[in-house]
Amino acid sequence: MNLQEELIKTAVKLFEERGYARTSVQDIVTVAGVTKGAFYHYFTGKEDVLMMLHEQYINHLLGQSREISSRPDLGPKAKLRELMKILLGEIAQYGGHAKVFFQEKNHLHPDHLELIREKRDEYFLLFEKVVREGIESGDFRSDLDPVITTLGVLGICNWSYRWFRPDGKYSSNEVANMFGEMIERGISS
Amino acid sequence: MNLQEELIKTAVKLFEERGYARTSVQDIVTVAGVTKGAFYHYFTGKEDVLMMLHEQYINHLLGQSREISSRPDLGPKAKLRELMKILLGEIAQYGGHAKVFFQEKNHLHPDHLELIREKRDEYFLLFEKVVREGIESGDFRSDLDPVITTLGVLGICNWSYRWFRPDGKYSSNEVANMFGEMIERGISS
Repeated sequence: MNLQEELIKTAVKLFEERGYARTSVQDIVTVAGVTKGAFYHYFTGKEDVLMMLHEQYINHLLGQSREISSRPDLGPKAKLRELMKILLGEIAQYGGHAKVFFQEKNHLHPDHLELIREKRDEYFLLFEKVVREGIESGDFRSDLDPVITTLGVLGICNWSYRWFRPDGKYSSNEVANMFGEMIERGISS
Repeated sequence: MNLQEELIKTAVKLFEERGYARTSVQDIVTVAGVTKGAFYHYFTGKEDVLMMLHEQYINHLLGQSREISSRPDLGPKAKLRELMKILLGEIAQYGGHAKVFFQEKNHLHPDHLELIREKRDEYFLLFEKVVREGIESGDFRSDLDPVITTLGVLGICNWSYRWFRPDGKYSSNEVANMFGEMIERGISS
């Protein structure tokens, strides 16, 4: 890991523990054991770190999910299952990022918040598109509201940022399969 | 609404908008248009308001849910549907409370946090008990993990604090019925 990565990782840990508002650049450099000069070599300030970790989180998620979404060999059920696996895997692996992403976005600069919102919207629409495809193909119930269904699927997965423990009883893939099974039965025609 | 209620409502609004850390007692009294003396007549400080709103939220939820959970005339499916309806209704009606409840609990005094945790645990166990009853009665699938299933049901409902709008397309009862249907089909044997 390079120093920039190291500083982001330290910041995530501090934002997660104390909250963004109560963490200073001084706290980050003290815990990371570097000088403020080193910090300002990589970041323009605290908000810059917050933006970078938001981007890391959503870009990583979007990249993998776009790929699944565009695969012609997968039907709606398989796509939805894979999208859930990616999301639960991301939250399992980057729990700190996820927590900060869900709780501290209002501290982003308005322009940055707008950029993150656009990506979140794109991410939401990837899920919604799969739900709509499934309704059209007859795989999913025709009485479903695609938006509410998408909100439900995202809710069941996203909420895991509050309880999933990497050292817990189940891996994120096992949880994804349990939730995937529940959702698939829940929305299949 | 009495003055104490008025102050809690103002505090919820400010905590929701700016976060607890960035809201002062002075902010609360200024927005509410009362003196600090009036504030300290009802509360010992800012944390006291935070604790009261946490208690209001969880007590209201627990009271209604305990009643449903103990009704001998309802089977597991009906109980689960009613519990979801109560939770989604609570979030719809007290969105600000819910948001502060989910995001600011770490600002509670450790003793207060412990009290709230106990009530949250009791609430979780009410849901889990219904899931276990349903597995035992054969209403729900025998291969379900009751804890993961409960986390899924709570996740799908709780996440609505981030998106539900009282002036949106559906009422909280309508959403509860859509999610209830999805969950019921998803976990039925």
